[in-house]
Amino acid sequence: MKTKTARDLGLAPGRFEPGPLNLITDVPGVRVGHTTISSGDVQTGVTAVIPHEGNTFREKLPAAAHVINGFGKSMGLIQIRELGTLETPIILTNTLGIGIAATALIEYMLEKNGAIGRDTGTVNPVVGECNDGFLNDIRGIHIKGEDVRNALENAREVFDQGSVGAGTGMCAYELKGGIGSSSRVLHIDDKTYTVGMLVLSNMGKTRDLIVAGKPVGEEVATLREKSDDPVPEGSIIMILATDLPLCERQLGRIAKRSLVGLSRTGSQIESGSGEIVIAFSTANRVPHYEENAIQAFQRLHEERLNDIFRATADCTEEAVLNSMLTAEAKTGIRGHHAPCLSDYLEAALSGPTMGTSTVKDRK
Amino acid sequence: MKTKTARDLGLAPGRFEPGPLNLITDVPGVRVGHTTISSGDVQTGVTAVIPHEGNTFREKLPAAAHVINGFGKSMGLIQIRELGTLETPIILTNTLGIGIAATALIEYMLEKNGAIGRDTGTVNPVVGECNDGFLNDIRGIHIKGEDVRNALENAREVFDQGSVGAGTGMCAYELKGGIGSSSRVLHIDDKTYTVGMLVLSNMGKTRDLIVAGKPVGEEVATLREKSDDPVPEGSIIMILATDLPLCERQLGRIAKRSLVGLSRTGSQIESGSGEIVIAFSTANRVPHYEENAIQAFQRLHEERLNDIFRATADCTEEAVLNSMLTAEAKTGIRGHHAPCLSDYLEAALSGPTMGTSTVKDRK
Amino acid sequence: MKTKTARDLGLAPGRFEPGPLNLITDVPGVRVGHTTISSGDVQTGVTAVIPHEGNTFREKLPAAAHVINGFGKSMGLIQIRELGTLETPIILTNTLGIGIAATALIEYMLEKNGAIGRDTGTVNPVVGECNDGFLNDIRGIHIKGEDVRNALENAREVFDQGSVGAGTGMCAYELKGGIGSSSRVLHIDDKTYTVGMLVLSNMGKTRDLIVAGKPVGEEVATLREKSDDPVPEGSIIMILATDLPLCERQLGRIAKRSLVGLSRTGSQIESGSGEIVIAFSTANRVPHYEENAIQAFQRLHEERLNDIFRATADCTEEAVLNSMLTAEAKTGIRGHHAPCLSDYLEAALSGPTMGTSTVKDRK
Amino acid sequence: MKTKTARDLGLAPGRFEPGPLNLITDVPGVRVGHTTISSGDVQTGVTAVIPHEGNTFREKLPAAAHVINGFGKSMGLIQIRELGTLETPIILTNTLGIGIAATALIEYMLEKNGAIGRDTGTVNPVVGECNDGFLNDIRGIHIKGEDVRNALENAREVFDQGSVGAGTGMCAYELKGGIGSSSRVLHIDDKTYTVGMLVLSNMGKTRDLIVAGKPVGEEVATLREKSDDPVPEGSIIMILATDLPLCERQLGRIAKRSLVGLSRTGSQIESGSGEIVIAFSTANRVPHYEENAIQAFQRLHEERLNDIFRATADCTEEAVLNSMLTAEAKTGIRGHHAPCLSDYLEAALSGPTMGTSTVKDRK
Repeated sequence: MKTKTARDLGLAPGRFEPGPLNLITDVPGVRVGHTTISSGDVQTGVTAVIPHEGNTFREKLPAAAHVINGFGKSMGLIQIRELGTLETPIILTNTLGIGIAATALIEYMLEKNGAIGRDTGTVNPVVGECNDGFLNDIRGIHIKGEDVRNALENAREVFDQGSVGAGTGMCAYELKGGIGSSSRVLHIDDKTYTVGMLVLSNMGKTRDLIVAGKPVGEEVATLREKSDDPVPEGSIIMILATDLPLCERQLGRIAKRSLVGLSRTGSQIESGSGEIVIAFSTANRVPHYEENAIQAFQRLHEERLNDIFRATADCTEEAVLNSMLTAEAKTGIRGHHAPCLSDYLEAALSGPTMGTSTVKDRK
Repeated sequence: MKTKTARDLGLAPGRFEPGPLNLITDVPGVRVGHTTISSGDVQTGVTAVIPHEGNTFREKLPAAAHVINGFGKSMGLIQIRELGTLETPIILTNTLGIGIAATALIEYMLEKNGAIGRDTGTVNPVVGECNDGFLNDIRGIHIKGEDVRNALENAREVFDQGSVGAGTGMCAYELKGGIGSSSRVLHIDDKTYTVGMLVLSNMGKTRDLIVAGKPVGEEVATLREKSDDPVPEGSIIMILATDLPLCERQLGRIAKRSLVGLSRTGSQIESGSGEIVIAFSTANRVPHYEENAIQAFQRLHEERLNDIFRATADCTEEAVLNSMLTAEAKTGIRGHHAPCLSDYLEAALSGPTMGTSTVKDRK
Repeated sequence: MKTKTARDLGLAPGRFEPGPLNLITDVPGVRVGHTTISSGDVQTGVTAVIPHEGNTFREKLPAAAHVINGFGKSMGLIQIRELGTLETPIILTNTLGIGIAATALIEYMLEKNGAIGRDTGTVNPVVGECNDGFLNDIRGIHIKGEDVRNALENAREVFDQGSVGAGTGMCAYELKGGIGSSSRVLHIDDKTYTVGMLVLSNMGKTRDLIVAGKPVGEEVATLREKSDDPVPEGSIIMILATDLPLCERQLGRIAKRSLVGLSRTGSQIESGSGEIVIAFSTANRVPHYEENAIQAFQRLHEERLNDIFRATADCTEEAVLNSMLTAEAKTGIRGHHAPCLSDYLEAALSGPTMGTSTVKDRK
Repeated sequence: MKTKTARDLGLAPGRFEPGPLNLITDVPGVRVGHTTISSGDVQTGVTAVIPHEGNTFREKLPAAAHVINGFGKSMGLIQIRELGTLETPIILTNTLGIGIAATALIEYMLEKNGAIGRDTGTVNPVVGECNDGFLNDIRGIHIKGEDVRNALENAREVFDQGSVGAGTGMCAYELKGGIGSSSRVLHIDDKTYTVGMLVLSNMGKTRDLIVAGKPVGEEVATLREKSDDPVPEGSIIMILATDLPLCERQLGRIAKRSLVGLSRTGSQIESGSGEIVIAFSTANRVPHYEENAIQAFQRLHEERLNDIFRATADCTEEAVLNSMLTAEAKTGIRGHHAPCLSDYLEAALSGPTMGTSTVKDRK
């Protein structure tokens, strides 16, 4: 049984069309791979995002990292901010697996680049994480280096969403969450560009959930199976890719707008949530080894950013919905159960026009 | 004819109750004053927010400034960030009037504090601004020092919203905007606290407008009178006051959450919009003149912030709606006309359940 | 009598050569103008830095603003950070005159650009300030709009240093400070580039002063005339110009290095000191009105920045020394007197090899 | 043979006295442990800084992280900035060992806190790093989890400096660097407080070196043995501890001032250098489990910070000198040799009063 995406259900935020796959991989060169570990108490995994088809260390990409809420342990953001470049694939996994993921990513980069740590400097591994401890035996630190390697080697254009890879044990709005993606196509001066988003969703409270503008959370909270233990406050990692020629400052501006889309799904950016965005552009390459002191760089005029902001908000909203709608219900450690949004969505969307929490006895 | 607030129309975002006035002035000690200048081509003014009843220079307040989008000229934010304190009232006016407002605020502070610039250091005037040039002859720089003084001296607990004070010439979502306010009451350990928001709204495109979760923008755009000239991208200044004991870092975290509420009204944080939040708490006072080297400070445990985040988002959403719903249509310079949201709201809200831009032919 | 610069006295920090003028105006297109107001209790003024020879609003420059210590009221930094551009000349004046300076700069920009506030958005005036209240009747707010206009119109390549313009009433290390400048020439791939620094110095305590690595402060403190009133903690504004092709992120990195040079003069970045750097590059222009959606941009490879960092530190150190050595002693309000470093320098430099505070009875 | 510290050689920056040990551990409760791995091509190790004597997860400390230059891979800084707390010991090691160090620190924290990842959220491991690849086979990733555990368990008040622990393979100013420490005692209102600094030094070029204000670098560069391979640009991690009651904002301000001391040793903050400061205060504890919604907090009045800024700069300068002076020369991988500063210092300090690069033929 193939799960349905938001768009399959008629939910299509915004005015712009998605790319052919409606995935981050609509941006040429971007690939995504998963390692899913799902067995009893162990519900976790790894997702790898490979930013372009070449050697990322030798051909870095302009990149930005934006921290919406810093209750998170993501690695590699400091250097992205200083130098404005991404030089490795991005690995996503569970919070306590970041050290293992970092080491595996370092080993992968060393293997591909004999000069690192020998004839040139070191490498900046980028790893994002969320806490999947509600379903997963996170204290067991079950991720292995080979799981990271496997995700990197499996990376491809068409990839699964939902409870896969790093999303295997994640919960969003106290329902099953995980990996979601979406894209938008923009036309600028006769050229076509793509903005793509991939999220690892693991945040929010059911009561806050909004779908397509409808505050369905209260109704879903009534319908859903109750859990004895609370789902801990989680996080969301958002990865934005584009082939638009943008500098790192502009990527930072765009990264910020993902919060607009996230807010429209009901997130309150809870205190204990690591809400982090990494954005990169494949249009310009920043060479590790310089040939000339001065490089040419292409960038979009600032006046053209507004549509890209809208597209970013829209595909963030859709990616979050996709991460939930494509995920199946899952039971994990200590019998914790995460139900599936799609089981409640029809009922919730056909409820009263506007949630009672939002509109009271209009006069 | 008294205009209707969002709540009069049944729009009441969130789960928490407002304070008795549903204004920022529900936070004890906070007062707001306006000078409205509305005559032909001159449609502008000044709004003053006085943060507490005492001498703000001698008894500073913990404060934070958060820049969501920095296309803005607000003054005083650098020092708020460094020292974590607010030491003057906050003045709001039009963009090109900031220099005049700053000078008038400086003179006001000098008058009340003979030591400034003589026996102690200088003073950090805080001035926020939006571009009211669509309706107002902004190039004329019509604000005078006495207008600022007047707003400061008029400040009181009960104040008008809409096209008043700094809001006189402002437009939100290409409709008439201006001053809006709202508050929420929170109960923590048997005590009652208030969060209050005041916005100067001047941002957004009609098509993006969302009211109570409904993407009414497309319908309002169809209904509204057309303007020959585009409304320039604007800004929004958001001022958050609370009597909760919070440190400046916590105030910064809360300030960020105003974007959640703003996003729920449809803002895309356009590139040319200065979206700036200033937050202060009246619970602790930071003395200018020290008596002891070490001061006691009260602050809320971090775990308790989530409800405050929700209350902040909710009263930001409501304050934005109030700024528009309480504003009457206005015609200004070059015949530019800003219609009023309330003229379209009933029709728009009674439209299809969900906007066509958001849900397409559900299957 | 012409005052002597640091270099006249043999003080020449670093390995790189200065430009022909050893001033910020060695960067082609940069000009500096002063209005000096020096009469009895009124010891203040205005300095204008014009960043290039064209229309700065229509042809903006990549720029960065770096706040080392934020006890300051400088205007315009928020937008520089968001958009990465400078679109006006930079005005320097005393702290309480910033509002007047901002208004005058706005008027100057309106005059040159009929579209501002009418057919396009507003303008972001950049104004830096220090507190000259030890010598000047700062509470009197003696700066007038015409003083700002005059400084702008007087701007030229060859300009005075010391107690002139905004530096008229400033004190550095409790001695007379003010305007100082210096430059360095760099050769990269057969081309020649210039880095220029202009400081408005008004910070520090005599005891901390270091000249050419020598901690001369204690000795100067012994030699100098005593003041009954303490010199208040001040600030320093540093303006860095270059014709190197750098993006705003790189300019921000370079701006940070000015602290290295400042530290070598003994500054402790006191709590009450606004230490602010604005850096701009004239090599790329960012058009206000776009012709094409995508612009070409030149930038230096990151590996080449180290020499520019050194040049920046060196010319910052020299500019601070120049601001003090070219300033003559001055008496101002309430009989406050600021003596001149050059009166003590020979004695101090010929003292013991290393200051007693730094090296104790070596064994 | 016991190596000599800076103070043994008469180098004693600043006006304040050091604590009894002149180490970071003069701050009560702070302990430092090393694991040194030195054998042939493997020259690396681990240093652990334990911030207080209790359970750091249950009793967090106010903390700040300041990135001077972000060419670094340090972990945990994002959450320190968001929440203002440190909840683990700090581990220092080589760049490519950070993943292993993070995992070992996580395991250590899990062992001591059964609730992490089960009944409460996760934990934020703090790991700093420098690139010791000039002397060490960094590509071999020789650090093991047990090395981290060992450093944590060995932590004590009296600890070695120089080529030990994480400092085993580090180079500063192209000479041998490593671990250095120093402290200062301050008297405020009849109470005594301590500021302590520990650095892991691995940055700089010989020619830039300044000792006690003297630009000795050029002379040392002439004297020193030549290396065929360049020492890569490195990094410096600076850890500041104090028992002064400071909030996280104030700690951030103090952390910034370490650059003043570092600059006085000649650092140019090279582009490829990760210059990172972590500062914590032991005076207030932030409980993980709240008892009351509102906690009392003590903090120093802002006016009292200046002496602490000076003490911080002074003990940073001394800690850097100590890291070099206590380190013995070392030969590592590929025959790379790092000579020892103390072999050249006497000659360099007894050279001409001021370096030729700084003062040219004074007239």
